[in-house]
Amino acid sequence: MATMLSARTGSVRRLGYLHKTPFTRNGSRAASGYVKYNHEDPLNLESLLTEEEIAIRDTAREYCQENLAPRVLEGWRTEKFNHDILPEMGKLGLLGPTIQGYGCAGVSSVAYGLIAREIERVDSGYRSTASVQSSLVMHPINEFGTEAQKERYIPRLAKGEIVGCFGLTEANHGSDPAGMETTAEEIDGGFVLNGSKTWISNAPVADIFVVWARCKWDAKVRGFILEKGLKGLEAPAIKNKVALRASLTGSIFMDSVRVGHDALLPHGQGLSAPFSCLNSARYGISWGVMGALEDCIQKTLTYALERKQFKRPLASFQLVQKKLVDAQTEAALGFQASLQVGRLKDTGKLAPEMISMVKRNNCGKALQHSRIVLDILGGNASSDEYHVGRHVANLQVVNTYEGTYDIHGLILGKATTGIQAFAN
Amino acid sequence: MATMLSARTGSVRRLGYLHKTPFTRNGSRAASGYVKYNHEDPLNLESLLTEEEIAIRDTAREYCQENLAPRVLEGWRTEKFNHDILPEMGKLGLLGPTIQGYGCAGVSSVAYGLIAREIERVDSGYRSTASVQSSLVMHPINEFGTEAQKERYIPRLAKGEIVGCFGLTEANHGSDPAGMETTAEEIDGGFVLNGSKTWISNAPVADIFVVWARCKWDAKVRGFILEKGLKGLEAPAIKNKVALRASLTGSIFMDSVRVGHDALLPHGQGLSAPFSCLNSARYGISWGVMGALEDCIQKTLTYALERKQFKRPLASFQLVQKKLVDAQTEAALGFQASLQVGRLKDTGKLAPEMISMVKRNNCGKALQHSRIVLDILGGNASSDEYHVGRHVANLQVVNTYEGTYDIHGLILGKATTGIQAFAN
Amino acid sequence: MATMLSARTGSVRRLGYLHKTPFTRNGSRAASGYVKYNHEDPLNLESLLTEEEIAIRDTAREYCQENLAPRVLEGWRTEKFNHDILPEMGKLGLLGPTIQGYGCAGVSSVAYGLIAREIERVDSGYRSTASVQSSLVMHPINEFGTEAQKERYIPRLAKGEIVGCFGLTEANHGSDPAGMETTAEEIDGGFVLNGSKTWISNAPVADIFVVWARCKWDAKVRGFILEKGLKGLEAPAIKNKVALRASLTGSIFMDSVRVGHDALLPHGQGLSAPFSCLNSARYGISWGVMGALEDCIQKTLTYALERKQFKRPLASFQLVQKKLVDAQTEAALGFQASLQVGRLKDTGKLAPEMISMVKRNNCGKALQHSRIVLDILGGNASSDEYHVGRHVANLQVVNTYEGTYDIHGLILGKATTGIQAFAN
Amino acid sequence: MATMLSARTGSVRRLGYLHKTPFTRNGSRAASGYVKYNHEDPLNLESLLTEEEIAIRDTAREYCQENLAPRVLEGWRTEKFNHDILPEMGKLGLLGPTIQGYGCAGVSSVAYGLIAREIERVDSGYRSTASVQSSLVMHPINEFGTEAQKERYIPRLAKGEIVGCFGLTEANHGSDPAGMETTAEEIDGGFVLNGSKTWISNAPVADIFVVWARCKWDAKVRGFILEKGLKGLEAPAIKNKVALRASLTGSIFMDSVRVGHDALLPHGQGLSAPFSCLNSARYGISWGVMGALEDCIQKTLTYALERKQFKRPLASFQLVQKKLVDAQTEAALGFQASLQVGRLKDTGKLAPEMISMVKRNNCGKALQHSRIVLDILGGNASSDEYHVGRHVANLQVVNTYEGTYDIHGLILGKATTGIQAFAN
Repeated sequence: MATMLSARTGSVRRLGYLHKTPFTRNGSRAASGYVKYNHEDPLNLESLLTEEEIAIRDTAREYCQENLAPRVLEGWRTEKFNHDILPEMGKLGLLGPTIQGYGCAGVSSVAYGLIAREIERVDSGYRSTASVQSSLVMHPINEFGTEAQKERYIPRLAKGEIVGCFGLTEANHGSDPAGMETTAEEIDGGFVLNGSKTWISNAPVADIFVVWARCKWDAKVRGFILEKGLKGLEAPAIKNKVALRASLTGSIFMDSVRVGHDALLPHGQGLSAPFSCLNSARYGISWGVMGALEDCIQKTLTYALERKQFKRPLASFQLVQKKLVDAQTEAALGFQASLQVGRLKDTGKLAPEMISMVKRNNCGKALQHSRIVLDILGGNASSDEYHVGRHVANLQVVNTYEGTYDIHGLILGKATTGIQAFAN
Repeated sequence: MATMLSARTGSVRRLGYLHKTPFTRNGSRAASGYVKYNHEDPLNLESLLTEEEIAIRDTAREYCQENLAPRVLEGWRTEKFNHDILPEMGKLGLLGPTIQGYGCAGVSSVAYGLIAREIERVDSGYRSTASVQSSLVMHPINEFGTEAQKERYIPRLAKGEIVGCFGLTEANHGSDPAGMETTAEEIDGGFVLNGSKTWISNAPVADIFVVWARCKWDAKVRGFILEKGLKGLEAPAIKNKVALRASLTGSIFMDSVRVGHDALLPHGQGLSAPFSCLNSARYGISWGVMGALEDCIQKTLTYALERKQFKRPLASFQLVQKKLVDAQTEAALGFQASLQVGRLKDTGKLAPEMISMVKRNNCGKALQHSRIVLDILGGNASSDEYHVGRHVANLQVVNTYEGTYDIHGLILGKATTGIQAFAN
Repeated sequence: MATMLSARTGSVRRLGYLHKTPFTRNGSRAASGYVKYNHEDPLNLESLLTEEEIAIRDTAREYCQENLAPRVLEGWRTEKFNHDILPEMGKLGLLGPTIQGYGCAGVSSVAYGLIAREIERVDSGYRSTASVQSSLVMHPINEFGTEAQKERYIPRLAKGEIVGCFGLTEANHGSDPAGMETTAEEIDGGFVLNGSKTWISNAPVADIFVVWARCKWDAKVRGFILEKGLKGLEAPAIKNKVALRASLTGSIFMDSVRVGHDALLPHGQGLSAPFSCLNSARYGISWGVMGALEDCIQKTLTYALERKQFKRPLASFQLVQKKLVDAQTEAALGFQASLQVGRLKDTGKLAPEMISMVKRNNCGKALQHSRIVLDILGGNASSDEYHVGRHVANLQVVNTYEGTYDIHGLILGKATTGIQAFAN
Repeated sequence: MATMLSARTGSVRRLGYLHKTPFTRNGSRAASGYVKYNHEDPLNLESLLTEEEIAIRDTAREYCQENLAPRVLEGWRTEKFNHDILPEMGKLGLLGPTIQGYGCAGVSSVAYGLIAREIERVDSGYRSTASVQSSLVMHPINEFGTEAQKERYIPRLAKGEIVGCFGLTEANHGSDPAGMETTAEEIDGGFVLNGSKTWISNAPVADIFVVWARCKWDAKVRGFILEKGLKGLEAPAIKNKVALRASLTGSIFMDSVRVGHDALLPHGQGLSAPFSCLNSARYGISWGVMGALEDCIQKTLTYALERKQFKRPLASFQLVQKKLVDAQTEAALGFQASLQVGRLKDTGKLAPEMISMVKRNNCGKALQHSRIVLDILGGNASSDEYHVGRHVANLQVVNTYEGTYDIHGLILGKATTGIQAFAN
C-alpha cells in the first residue's frame, strides 16, 4: 500500500493535478517580510505536515473531487449504496491506513485525518462508510483479533472487497452502552448471540459484522465477528433518512445466531475495547467535519463572489463577510486542534478526553457555521445542487452520533470536576 | 363562509374534539391565588383571543392534525402536490379568510395568523401553499383588482378550486425586486409580457399567475393575472429540494405572453403593490413558524419524557430542560409580538417595519430553537418519522424567503438610523 | 397618592415636558395606510397602556431623566447612598404604587412595571433600591402584616421616610432558600432571632428589616420586622462591588436579636410568603432591565450616528445596524411579554412560572444585547461617562439575583416536564 | 538576560516552585495506553514548547502569581500605577524579550506569548502596560531606530527604568489610522509636532512617547520619540474607567512640540511601520486573553467545587459543567492557534491576517466565555474579590482595542473575498 500511495502520488504529480486543483498553495512570499494570506489554509496547516501526509492528502483530494463528488447527488437522492466506492478507496490505500501490514499503508494518524477530511469535504455519508470500515471494523480486528482473523479479514477489508459494520449501539442505550442488552452465551462449539442493534452504518450491505455482546459467563462485553448469511442474522435498512442519505444505515437483529469459537475477538474485553474503536473513529470525524465545513465555505464564497444584489457582489457586504470569516476561523482552529491530537496519539500521549474535545468542538462548530453560511445562498439553499444544505443535514447527525455533543461535554466535565453528571 | 366556520366549530365541539386534543387548556385555578402554568401556552395567548378566533383556531387545528399530518411524510418523500388539500382548506374557510365577501370569512388578521400557525405546525410547505393562495393571490386581486376580476377569481380561489401563484422574484434579484427585468408592453388589445421568475411556490400546479412586470410605457411595476395555458407561458417544477418538499416550487417563463387588458390589476402600481402582498404573507409567516416550533417542542418533549438514558428520562437532564425551555420562551414571546402586530394591522396602526420585526425574529428564533431541540432526538433525528428534522430543513428556507433575515434586519436598521445599508 | 400622581401629571403636561422629551411619540400617520415606524417603541406598546399608565410613565421618566440621571456617576464612583432619592420617589408616588391605601397609589401592575423601566433606564442600582422598598418590604407588610404593622410602616415607607430591606438569602443557600439556617425561637414576650443573611440590598442604610427565619416551634418559615438599632443586629456594607455600585448591599447578622410578638408577620407562613414578594420583585425586574437595554440602545445609536470612521457614520455599517436592531427587537418583545404578565397578574390569571419566564428572558436578553451594543462605543466603552458599560456590569448581577437565569430555566423545566432537575 | 532567565529558572527549580504551583503537569501515564487528561492543559500545549520556553513561562508564572496577583485589587480599586512593577518585570527579562541584544533576552515569539499569558492571567491592565513597553515602544525603536536611539533607550526600557507609550490612535480615527491628523513639520534643527492622541496606555506615566505623525513634506507617516517634559507636551490621565483600571490610560496633546532630528525613527515610513508594532502587540494579546480566560475557568471551577446548592457542589450540575467545558475548549484551541502563529512568525511565514485571526478569535472567545463562567459565581460575581468580573470588564476593552473584533473580521473578509468592506 505504501507503494501504491507513493506510486499514486508520483502519478498525481506527473499528471499536473496539483496545478489544476482549485485549492491554493501557501507561502508565496509577499514584500515586507510577510507571506501572502491563504484563506484556504489560514494558519498554514500544511507547514506542519510531512511530505508523505501532503501526498496522501492530495491523492485523497483528487479522488474525492473527481470520483466521489460527481456521484453524491445521485446517492443522496436515491439512498442507494454505490458498491464501487469502497474498492476504489481500497485501491488508493485509503482504508485502514494506519494499520501496519495486512496490505495497509501504516501511515500516521494525521494522514488518516487528512483522508477523512477529503472524503467528508464531499459528503459525511461517504466518510461514515469509510470510517466504519477503517476505525470500527479493521481497527478492532487488528487490535483485538487473532492472527488468523487478521489475515482472513483485514486484507480484503483494506481492498474494499468486503464491507464491514460495527454493532454497538442499541435502541435503548444510545449514549449509555453500559446498558447493553445483547448477549453471548457459550455453547458447544462456540457461541450463540441474541439481541439487536440500531443506527448501524453500512449494516444493510455488510459482509461482516463486528458485534459487541455481554457474555453471560462473566458479564463482560466482548466483540464477535459475524459473517453475512448466518442463520438468525438480519440487517434491514432504515430508509427515508433526512441526512447521510449517501450511506446506508440499518438495524441488526440477532435471533440465536450461532458462531464458532473463532468468531470471538479474544484480546479485548470490557467496554474499553469498543471505546478504543470509537475513539479512533471520533478522531477521524474531528477532521472530517472540518472538511465538510471547508466545502461549505468554498461553495458559499464562490456564490457570494458571483451573485450580485443591489449591483454589488454579496461578498462585498459586511454581514456576508462576517459569516465567511467566522466559519473560516473555526475551521482553521479545529484543524490545529485535531492535528495536535493526532500527533499526541502517534506518540503515546493521548488522553481519550482530548478526542472528546475535538470531536465535540469540531462537529459543533462545523454544524453551527455550515448553517450560518448556508444562508448566503438565499433561496438557492433549498436546492440540493448547491450542496451546502446536504452538508448541514449531515452534520447534524455527525454532531450527534458517536457521542452526542452533550455527552462529550459531560465526559470533559467529569474529567475537569471529578464529578460524573451524565445522569443529571 | 362565516357560517361554515361557525357550523364547523359547532360540530367540532359536538364531536368532543377539544377533549381528545393533546393540547391543554389554560387557566385551571390552583390554590394560593395562582393559576396552573400551561407549558403549551405559557403566557396565556388564548386569553387575548376572541371566541371566534378560538373557534377558528380549533377548527384549523383539528383539520391539520387529523387530515394534513397523516399525509405529510408522503408529500415530503415524493415531492408530490396533493390536489385535495386546497379544496379541503377552502371548505373550512381557511383560504383568504380576512377578505370580506366573495365567499370569504372576513375574520381578523389574528385569526389568519392562527390558521397559519396550525398549518405550519404540520409543515411549512403546506403553509406556504396556503399563504400564497391567501396573501399573494387573493389579496392582490382583492386590493388591486377590478370588480370583475374579484368575482371571477376570488370565490374559486377561496374554495381551493383553482390554485394561484405569485411571480415577483427573479433569478438575479432575490433581495432587490427593484431590479426587476420582466417587462409588459402595451399592444393592440392588451399586453405582451416577457421575462422569467424563479422560486415561485405553487407555480407548477397553478391555474392562475399573479405576475409583476415593469411596464414599458411608464417604467412602473404592475400586476397581471395570467391563466394557465397561455401561449409562451411555462412553469416547470424545481425538483430535489432539500426543504419544503411537500409544496411545489417552480420557475415561470414568459416568452411573449399575450393577455387582454382585463389581465391588468389596475389599482396598484409601483412596488408598493406587491410589497403589500408580501407584508400580508410575512405577517402570516410570523405566526406559522411559531407553530412549527411548537410542534418541534411538543415532539421532542414527548420523546424526552419517554426515552431513558442512564435509567432516567432525558427530560430529567438539565441540558435537555434548558433546550426545551429556551424554545418555549421564544415561542411564547413570538406569539405575543405577532398578536400585537395583527391587532395593530386591523386597527390601522401598522408600520411595515413591524412586520419585518416579527417575520425576522420569529423565523430566526424558530429556526434556531428547532435546531436545538432536534438534538434531543439523538440518532433518531435522522429519521423523517420523527418530523423535527423536516421542520428544521423547512424553517431554514422560510427564514430566507420573503425577505431574508439580514434584509429585514437592514430594513429595521434603515428605519432606526435613517441610513440605508442594503448595499453595504 | 392618586392625587399626587394626577397633580404631578398635570404639572408635567403644563410644563410641556412631553415636548422636550427626547422620546418619540407613536402613530404619526404615513401615506399609504401605514403609520410611521417608531424605533423607540417598535411594537407600539403605548397603544396598550391606559391614560393613567402613560401619565405615570411620563412622570417617572421626567423625574428619572432630570433628577436621577445627573447623579448616577457620582453614586457609581463612590458607592455612596443618596438619602434624598427615596423621599423624592415617595413624593411622586413611585414607591409601593400597587398597594391600595396607606398613602399608596393603588395603580396597576403594569404601571408598577413602567416605573421600574424608567428607574432602571438610569441605573439598575436605583431600581433595586426601589424594588426592595416596594416589592420586598411594603408588599409583605401589606400582604402578611397586621393592621397595626401596616399603619406603622407602610405610609412612611411610601414616603421614603424610612428605608426597608429584605433578608432571605443566606451565604450558603443562594438558589435554595429551603436550606435556610436562620432561626426564630419563641421566648417570653416575643422571639429571639439568630442567623445571618447576605447580599441584601439596602441593608446598610435600612431602618427596618423584613427578615425570614425558620421558626423552631414548627419548622415553618415566617417573616419578622426588625427595626434598626436592636441589640445584636448588625448590617455592614459590602464594598468594592463591580456592579450596582449606586445602591448599597450588605450582610445582616443577628446574634440573639430579641423582638416582641408584634414583630411577627402573622399572615404568611412557609416559603410561599417570601416567594410572593420575590415574584412581585421579579416581575418588576422584567420591566426594569428592558429599560436599561433601551438606554443602551439609545446611547449607542446616538453615538453611532455621530461617530464617523472611514468618513461614514458608524450607523451606516451593516454590522452596527445589526447590533442595534437585534437589541431593539428583544426589547420590544420583552415588553410585550411583561405587559401580558402584568395584565394576567391584575386579573388573577398569573402562574408564577410566567414570572420566571419574563424575569429570565428579559434579564438574559438585556444582558446579552447591552453587551453587544457596548462594542459600538469602541474604546470609549471603557469610560464610565458613556454609561453603557455600567449598565452591562449591573445587568450581569440582575440576571443572577432573585433567581439566576439557570434556576428560572429549571423552574420552567419542572413545570414543563414534571421533573425537578435543580440538583442535577 | 538569557543568563538572568536561566539563573532564575535554576533557582525556581531549586525552590521547588514547580511543586507548589497549583497548576498541574501533563503526561502522567494511565493504564490502558492512554495518559491522564490534564484539564489545565487539555491539548498538551506544553509538549510543543522548548525547555527554554517552559522555563520562561514558569518564571513569569511564579512572578505574576506571587508578586502581581496580591496587588491587583488595590490597583483596580484606586486606578493607581504601581511604579515597582515594570522594574520587577525588567529584572526577570520579561520586557522586550524577543529583541536580540541591548540587554534583551532574544527569545522566541512563543516565549513572548507565554509571558503575556501569565501576566494577563492576573490582569489585562498589567499585560497592557507590558505589551506597550515591549511591542509598541521597544519594538519600533529596535526596528526603525538608529543605533544611537537603540542604545539610548532599549536597555533602560528593558530594565523597566523608563516607561514608554505609543501614540497612534486619534479621537476621530479609532479604526482608521489613515485619517491621522497629527502633523510633523521640518524646521530648523528638527521638527515641530502638533496634534493629539487618545486612549494611550501608559501615557500619564510615560518617560518616552513613540508618536506617529503625518510629515508635511511628503505626507508620509513616521514615528518620533518624544521625551517627557518637552514644552507643549501634555499627557493627562483618563480616570474613572470601567476596565483596565490597574493600568493607566491618557491622552497626548502636542502643541508645537519641538524636537531635534534625532527624535525621528528613520527606518520606517508609512503606516506599515506602526502596523508592524500593532501586529506584534496583537499577537501577544492573543496569548494574554487566553491566560485571563484560564484564570476565570480556574477560579470558577474552584468555586463550583466548593460551593454547594441543594446539597451538591455546583460542579456536579450539567449546566455548570457545560459552561466550564466550553470555556476550557476555547482556551485550548486558542492556544494551539497562537502557538502556530508564533512559530510561523519566527520562521518568516507570517501573514498579518493570521494575527487578525488569533487576536479576534481569542479576544472574542475569552470575552464570551469569561462572561459565561462568571455566572457560576452567582451573587458573588459582583464582588471584586472574586476577580472574574474584573477580567470580564477588562476583556471587553481588550476585544476592542488594537483593532476591534469587527475590524479584524473585515480585514480577514478582505483577504478572503478580495473586496474591502470597512466602510460598508
